[in-house]
Order: sequence, then C-alpha cells, then structure tokens
Amino acid sequence: MRSQFDRERLLEEAHEFGEKLDSSTSPTEHLDPRNPVTFISVGGGELGDLVVTAAKRIIGGVGGGVKTVVFDRYHGFPAQDSADYSEVFDLIDGDSLRKAIKKYVPDPSAPHVIFLEIERAATYTTFELGVKENFNVASTPYAPLIFMDRYLTKLLFDKLNLPSVNWRYAKSAEELKEAAEEIGLPVIVKPIMTSSGHGTTIVRERSGLEEAYEHSVKHARGKGDEVIVEEYLEELKEEGTEITQLVLRHFDESGRIVSTPLPPVEHKRPGATYHESWMPAKIPEEVARKCMEYAVKIADYIGGLGLFAVEQFVLRGKVYNSEVANRPHDTGMITRWMLMFDEGALQLLSTIGLPIPRDWVRIVRNDVFGAAHVILAPKLRGKSVRVKRWSAKEVISYGCSKGYSFDLWYFGKPVAYPGRRMGLAVAFHEELSEARRIAEEVAHLAEKSIEYEESL
Amino acid sequence: MRSQFDRERLLEEAHEFGEKLDSSTSPTEHLDPRNPVTFISVGGGELGDLVVTAAKRIIGGVGGGVKTVVFDRYHGFPAQDSADYSEVFDLIDGDSLRKAIKKYVPDPSAPHVIFLEIERAATYTTFELGVKENFNVASTPYAPLIFMDRYLTKLLFDKLNLPSVNWRYAKSAEELKEAAEEIGLPVIVKPIMTSSGHGTTIVRERSGLEEAYEHSVKHARGKGDEVIVEEYLEELKEEGTEITQLVLRHFDESGRIVSTPLPPVEHKRPGATYHESWMPAKIPEEVARKCMEYAVKIADYIGGLGLFAVEQFVLRGKVYNSEVANRPHDTGMITRWMLMFDEGALQLLSTIGLPIPRDWVRIVRNDVFGAAHVILAPKLRGKSVRVKRWSAKEVISYGCSKGYSFDLWYFGKPVAYPGRRMGLAVAFHEELSEARRIAEEVAHLAEKSIEYEESL
Repeated sequence: MRSQFDRERLLEEAHEFGEKLDSSTSPTEHLDPRNPVTFISVGGGELGDLVVTAAKRIIGGVGGGVKTVVFDRYHGFPAQDSADYSEVFDLIDGDSLRKAIKKYVPDPSAPHVIFLEIERAATYTTFELGVKENFNVASTPYAPLIFMDRYLTKLLFDKLNLPSVNWRYAKSAEELKEAAEEIGLPVIVKPIMTSSGHGTTIVRERSGLEEAYEHSVKHARGKGDEVIVEEYLEELKEEGTEITQLVLRHFDESGRIVSTPLPPVEHKRPGATYHESWMPAKIPEEVARKCMEYAVKIADYIGGLGLFAVEQFVLRGKVYNSEVANRPHDTGMITRWMLMFDEGALQLLSTIGLPIPRDWVRIVRNDVFGAAHVILAPKLRGKSVRVKRWSAKEVISYGCSKGYSFDLWYFGKPVAYPGRRMGLAVAFHEELSEARRIAEEVAHLAEKSIEYEESL
Repeated sequence: MRSQFDRERLLEEAHEFGEKLDSSTSPTEHLDPRNPVTFISVGGGELGDLVVTAAKRIIGGVGGGVKTVVFDRYHGFPAQDSADYSEVFDLIDGDSLRKAIKKYVPDPSAPHVIFLEIERAATYTTFELGVKENFNVASTPYAPLIFMDRYLTKLLFDKLNLPSVNWRYAKSAEELKEAAEEIGLPVIVKPIMTSSGHGTTIVRERSGLEEAYEHSVKHARGKGDEVIVEEYLEELKEEGTEITQLVLRHFDESGRIVSTPLPPVEHKRPGATYHESWMPAKIPEEVARKCMEYAVKIADYIGGLGLFAVEQFVLRGKVYNSEVANRPHDTGMITRWMLMFDEGALQLLSTIGLPIPRDWVRIVRNDVFGAAHVILAPKLRGKSVRVKRWSAKEVISYGCSKGYSFDLWYFGKPVAYPGRRMGLAVAFHEELSEARRIAEEVAHLAEKSIEYEESL
C-alpha cells in the first residue's frame, strides 16, 4: 500500500519527470521507412483500431515511417488485422509485457511510442521501463500509474486546486463509516483501482456502508483494501450532465509542446460504463471554458505528448473533476464523425512527435449534433460465447427506410460476454434529442441483428 | 482487333449480362466471420487503401465478416500493410491473376468480390472468370473491358444518346487524316487503350497527324494500331471545366439495385493526369443535373454493384461525356473529406451487397470548399529511385504557421519515378480559389519535403 507521503512524492516526481521530458523532446524531423517509429498499442480494442488505421490512412504505414504493433489478451481483437504486428498475451503480466515491448523495441533510443490503450495492463512495468530504461511511454510513464489510482487522482486535483466532489480515503469499513459521516449521505464508494466502474456502490443509508466496503474490496485490482468515498451528487442525473474533456498535448509549429483542449464531449450513462455521447456538448460557453481550463491544467502538470481524457460532472454551472485517463476515451469515439481528425488519429500524430494545427481538433460538422450509442451484447447466459454472424443489411435498411442520417461501426469482436460493447451506432440531427433517439434506436436494432453461437 | 460488329455485340451482351445479374442478385443478409466475403482488390494503390481500411474501420474486418486481399506489382504498395492478405505479381499477366484469384476464392459460389482498382490488369482474364466461371467481378465482368476501350466507350455514349465531342475511329494514318478532315482541326488523337493519357496528342496542323498516329501506336496497350480522334475543345481550359461524375450502384432499403449519383467533383489538370480536384463543384444546378443524369444512364446500362466514374467536359452549359472508369477515381479522393463516406468505403459497402442510404453519398461539410492537390515526385534522373524519408513536420508546421485549414495524406510508396503521385494535400476554405491555392502551396512544400535515395 502506498502511504500518503509516497503518493505526494510520486506526484512531485511525475511533474518533475514531465518537465524534464518536455524540455528534452523535440518534434520528429523526418519519418523514415527504414528506421520507422515503432508505435506499440498495449490493448487493441476499438480505440487501438482507430490509432492503427490512422497510421495507414494518413501516414502511409511503414512506407511512410510508422510501424504499428498491437498487444491484447485474445485472438481476433479489433486492431489486430490492421496492425503490422501483433502479440496475444495477458497484458497484466509484467514479464510478458516487458518481453513483448523489448521484442519490438530492443533499444529504447530507437524511435518508438508505447501507448497504453487500456487500464488493465501492467502499468508498473511500463513505469519502470519508462523511468529506468528510457522507454517512451505516452504521455509519461507516471501518467497511467497516477490516473488508474483514484486516490492519486484526487490528490492531484487538490494539489492543482481543481474542484471535485467532497471525498475521503478509507482503508477499513470503520474508516469508511467515519468518512461517510463527515461527507454526509448519500455517498459513492469506489475501490482505488478498478476499470469500468467495477466495485462501485452508491450508499444511501448508513447500514449499507459495510457491504459497500466488502463489494469494493472484492472487485478491486491489487491489494484492494483501500477505498475512496465521495459525495454523491443526487441531482446530477436529473439536473446536471457529464462531460469528457479531451485535451491534446502536442507540438505546435514552433516546436513547443502545448495543451489544446478539444470541444467537450457530453455523455449520459445509466450505469458506470460508456453508453451514449454526443458533440457539440449542450453546456454554456463559460462552463465549457472551465471544463477545458481544468483539463489543460491536469495535462500540463503531467507533461509529455498525447491525449488526456478528464471526466467531469457539471451541476448548476459548477464543474467537478472526477476521473482522468491518459489516452483517447470511449465517449470520445464520436470525434470520428465530428472533428477533422478522430481521437485515435490525434493520439498517433501527437505522440509520434508531429505538430498539430489547432484546426485539426475542432468540429467540422457545424450544422448537426452527432450522437453515438453503444451496441451491446445481451445478458448472455454463461460467461462468453462466440459471435456467429450479424446483419448489417437489416440495420442499414431500417435506417434507410426511416430516412435517418446515421452510421454504424461494427468492431468485429469474435467473442461476447454479457454487456460487451460490440459496436457503435451514430446519428445526426439538428435536434440533439432526435440525434440521441435515433442513435439509440439503431443501436438496439443492431444488438438484435447480432447472432451468437449458443442460445441466449 | 475487334470489329465494329463485335463491339456492338459486346455492348448488347454487356447489357443483357447486367440485367440478368441485377435480377439474380440480392443483398447480403448476414456477414459471417467464419464464411467472410473475400474482397479482392486487383491493384493496391491509394484507392485500394481506402477500400481496405474501410473494411477494418466500418465492418470490423474479418471479425465483422469481410476478408481483404490485395494484389499489386511491387512490394510495399499502399494497401499492402492494411490488407489481410497480399500477393505481388504482374497484374497484366492473366495466368498469374487467375491463379491468385483462385487461391483466395477456389469456389466462386463462396461470397466474394473482385474489384479492379487499376486499368493495367488482365481485364480479359477477369472477364472470362466472370462470364464463364461465375466469379463476381464488380460491377460486371464486361465493364472494365468496355471502359478501358475508348472506342467501345464512345459507341456506348452514342447508343445511349449521350452527348460527347465529335469523334471518329481510325486504324491507319490515312484513316486518321480523313477523320480529322471530317471533324476539323484541332483534334486530339488517342490510342484505344492506355491509361493516364499515355500516347495522346493534340494536333493543330494537318502535318502533325502522322506523328500523332505513330505516337499513339507506340504508347498503346495491346495491338495498338487503332486510334480515336476527337474534336479538341480549345476553349475548355479557359471557358469550360471538367467534372468527374461518380455514381454508385447499390441496393436500396427494399432490396432493389439503384444508381445514386454523388455530388459532382470538379477538377483541373495541366496535363492528362489527375492534378487537383474539389467539392462542391462550381457549376450551375442544371448542369450538375445533366452530369448526374448521363452518368446514371451509363451505370444503369452496365448494371451490377459499385462505383462508376464518368469524366465529363462542361463548356457553355453543355456536358460532353468523355471517359468512364468502373471504380473509384483519383479525382474523387476528395470525397474522403467532404462526404459521410469516401469513395473507397462506398465501393466496399456497395459491392459486398449492403444497402446504402442516400445520406451516405452527400456532402457533410457544407460551409467550405475542399480542394485536393497531388504531391508528385520530381523529374528524377533515371527511372526510379527509393524514397529515403519525408518531413511531415516541415509541412504541417508551415500550414500551422499560416493558419491554414488543411490536411496531408502521404501514401507511403517505397519507390518513386518522375511525376509519381506520392500523396495528397487538401485544403478547406470558404473561397474556392483560396482552397485551391492553399492545397497547391502545401502540396509543393510536401514535394520538397520528400528525400530520395539518389541525387536528383
């Protein structure tokens, strides 16, 4: 367990590392097919796929000086068939990860980028590779370590004087009860480390705290007796909204590294995971400015190159910073339809050291809202089943017949488990409510169009 | 040599074949990863790359039920590193092409598409495979055969009562002189079969006809003593303009095959090959309607699924049909930035048998002109040289510093020869002239940023 002191020191070190890195990094002068930048995506889901296909579509792949390598834990992952090279192993296993990285980048002085596409990876290994052996982990080797740890993330918000909900740290059910008392119910109890909201409980009555603690411990990654307890913004669902504020650290035309915020993405979720998101966000301009300002401060503190995704709550004009991911974000997939470059392309181009014009991160479809809605696998019986087939025809025909302006992105995952994200439905409309409604309708039809091997 | 009669019969047969094909084809009900549609692109340049990456980015690749295979004549071609499988051989060699196709599609009853991305391929072999062995050549096996033959193309225009410039057929210098007399000088003399304008001469004086004939014969593909002589529209460059009218044959939501014209692409070329193009075209609406109407008639006559690109001259409100390609078109690459789907994606989705909403072929960036300009290799000494490296940084930094709205697409070709197309620069502006100027400026800078192995 990291002590409070260790955590504070880690944050200091992270900042120093980032500053030193920034001052010693310069833009990539040439892309060289014989000595290409080896771009390693640790995780090859839909976000990895965006990054890898961008390397082919914009830069010309290896012939243009960028070689793509993707790792994931199962065969047939989305980015596998687009990448130049791929490896399949458990990304949590540090030894395997180290070995795989060194297979493709034997010498860290060769041009390369290590991009952690997912949280479920051996981030301590990449941290060590970055700090001790000079491997280039985007944005810095510290960032994934910090932002997968909710406690560290909260400490960083406090350090930077960024607003967040009231919170306390607890490492026993007793401490949790005291903390909840101080904050006032309802509260939300979360493990310090998980992904996709696993182990999280909203607690409305004191009697539920014990159970919430057990639940958190059970689902946590690592040792897991540590929890974060937060003020639960009851009115958020009805009166507030949620923002993912993406911010890109990149070279500008004069060779300086700057942080450029993307237009905010707004999203809504019935549970803890990504469900639907849209652009442009329907928030007042002064709120959007705050969202951007906070995210830029976080990115600037950490340093390095690439995207940061800051999750924020907005309630009554106030912005609460909640979580951070140092990468493109699920909710940000809508950038693919609304910006000049999608978040995957921006991650690629910035981290390989190219300058990015501000024009590349702005909305280019100005006349509509674009809304994306997840296409999920159903509550399948059993753990996981093979995908049998799907009917693009059925979904497209339906959207056609309704005269919808829509699109479909099918990820091509070979296997599904309950609630797994299989694709995205996207809709466009002058009215946001219509864009959202159509995206949802198309997504639900798409869900029905996928057939699975075993009966459900 | 085909006689006039053979040609007329071929056009009749083509139409019958197309009609029969259309009535016996139905949309693809399911995409099945275990029995994927094998999509073969014969030619893997930048257009092939658009098609192949679309399979990964929209459908999810093999996991989504589409396997991509690309053939080209050299290693390191643009689509090679995106495709699931690739083969390198001389595409003009019919035996090799037949063997390669049968390697990936041993049984033509399995779902597959054969897409001829370039003219320089053994089209008679794919014709035979299509007509005699039921392979699925897009749009039909007849189409590439007809449209690589300028005489057949002209006959088709006449058959469909579509306007084109005055033209005659000649198979000797004597016949050419007679024909030129009838048409009146200046004329343009072209071999019946070439690609990229090779062997073409503008003749202003009678004394130049002999030489023009020799030049045509020398550069023609195949036997080559046949030429087409056309009225040369002297005023075209100054007073007229050129259009590529793309039209997509695709299933609609009710399962019928229909022809949907894309918004016209306008372009300008100092020579015979693609140089710059833009959307939307700046032509009156009634002219655009004629462009679309003619192109739809051509596509409907041929039948099948996929894109047709009809090259047209526009002069004083009149539209002259000139050439046709049964595929996405160089000038149409600008669709990537201006439409919901680029021409590569449309080619893929339509030919694998999916319905296409009309919404997918319209312009989604309504507030700007988008102009694309080729990035060419310089007049290199010697035949061909390896590309050493290029500087994306230099080009992007410059565009940034000027505040341009622009993009860069580098194809990643390993080798260049004089004038070879290495990439595309794209610019956006409310004023077309500015968009074109910026695209050209960025393209020329990009040309300078590419370094080659040997001194130039």
